[in-house]
Amino acid sequence: MGAVILHVTMSLDGFIAGPDVGVDHPMGVGGLRLHEWLFNADTNETDSTIVKHHFAAVGAVVLGRRTFDVGIDIWKDTPYPAPSFVVTHRGRDDLPMNSSTFTFVTEGVETAIHQAKAAAGTKHVTLMGADVAQQAIRAGLLDEIHLQLAPVLLGTGRRLFEHLGSEHIELERTSVTESPYVTHLRFRLR
Amino acid sequence: MGAVILHVTMSLDGFIAGPDVGVDHPMGVGGLRLHEWLFNADTNETDSTIVKHHFAAVGAVVLGRRTFDVGIDIWKDTPYPAPSFVVTHRGRDDLPMNSSTFTFVTEGVETAIHQAKAAAGTKHVTLMGADVAQQAIRAGLLDEIHLQLAPVLLGTGRRLFEHLGSEHIELERTSVTESPYVTHLRFRLR
Repeated sequence: MGAVILHVTMSLDGFIAGPDVGVDHPMGVGGLRLHEWLFNADTNETDSTIVKHHFAAVGAVVLGRRTFDVGIDIWKDTPYPAPSFVVTHRGRDDLPMNSSTFTFVTEGVETAIHQAKAAAGTKHVTLMGADVAQQAIRAGLLDEIHLQLAPVLLGTGRRLFEHLGSEHIELERTSVTESPYVTHLRFRLR
Repeated sequence: MGAVILHVTMSLDGFIAGPDVGVDHPMGVGGLRLHEWLFNADTNETDSTIVKHHFAAVGAVVLGRRTFDVGIDIWKDTPYPAPSFVVTHRGRDDLPMNSSTFTFVTEGVETAIHQAKAAAGTKHVTLMGADVAQQAIRAGLLDEIHLQLAPVLLGTGRRLFEHLGSEHIELERTSVTESPYVTHLRFRLR
């Protein structure tokens, strides 16, 4: 079985998007700053290798409804070429796209992750969106965190790690890789 | 002149202490988890070297009143063998200790940092406490962040980076050092 991973860029002060995420600002106001390293990844071998390996390893995606709503006009496809499960309260029919299909899951994050694992086979399930990530952590379903730590303090925005309760969750740092634009940190949840 | 630095251990979810910091729990409830690496530093050369260099480089300290109140019974001295400036609303006479002296500054963080820089000479001023750190960042007086990133999600506690406003603050990552217990990350504020 593959792992359930969270692969995301976070500012040093803990934000994965700016404030007011919406169709007009899919990364929140000012949030594109976080993805500057991606714009440069083509010219930087460390980053491009990590991005390439990540994309190749993803066998299914679980994303929140808001991530779907603000992302679909940008991707015009599934976010990865892999079955994509949208956690939502409003059920709708499967939505076939060019590379793969969106399936809408109304039974919650745990069900979505189980379906995604079945679809991913030996590949990884990747999570998108802070809500989905937090729910997966609370449910004990997240295996790995692949963080790109951006050297910036955003000040405000969408925090990655909150609403996790008060139990400590121990991590094992499995790798650290420096690139000119970010610090890649990987952790395994124990 | 030395630099104004913030040297602190932070959990991956952004906390530098657990909840309910007070005399009974100087690091907050459960917050001692963050300093586990320090308990092991004696037996680990990477960590012990970093701790030794940090202590040797500090020429003055600026700390908050709460940090003073909860720390004094533990240190039974100034936190470093260097002049220590306590930012407080309640003035009091200088408090000489074994290694150095506490001076109580009622004119705010900026004044305390200016006094500390004068006292430190060519050595660094180190800041202690989230409030003091946040005020120094907002005032543009912080030069460097020396972070020990602990591989744990605390869930709740005292956040290091908040109340910073909404202007992005760009950082330059100056070093990354792995130890078995934490990841040492240094940033320069631009």
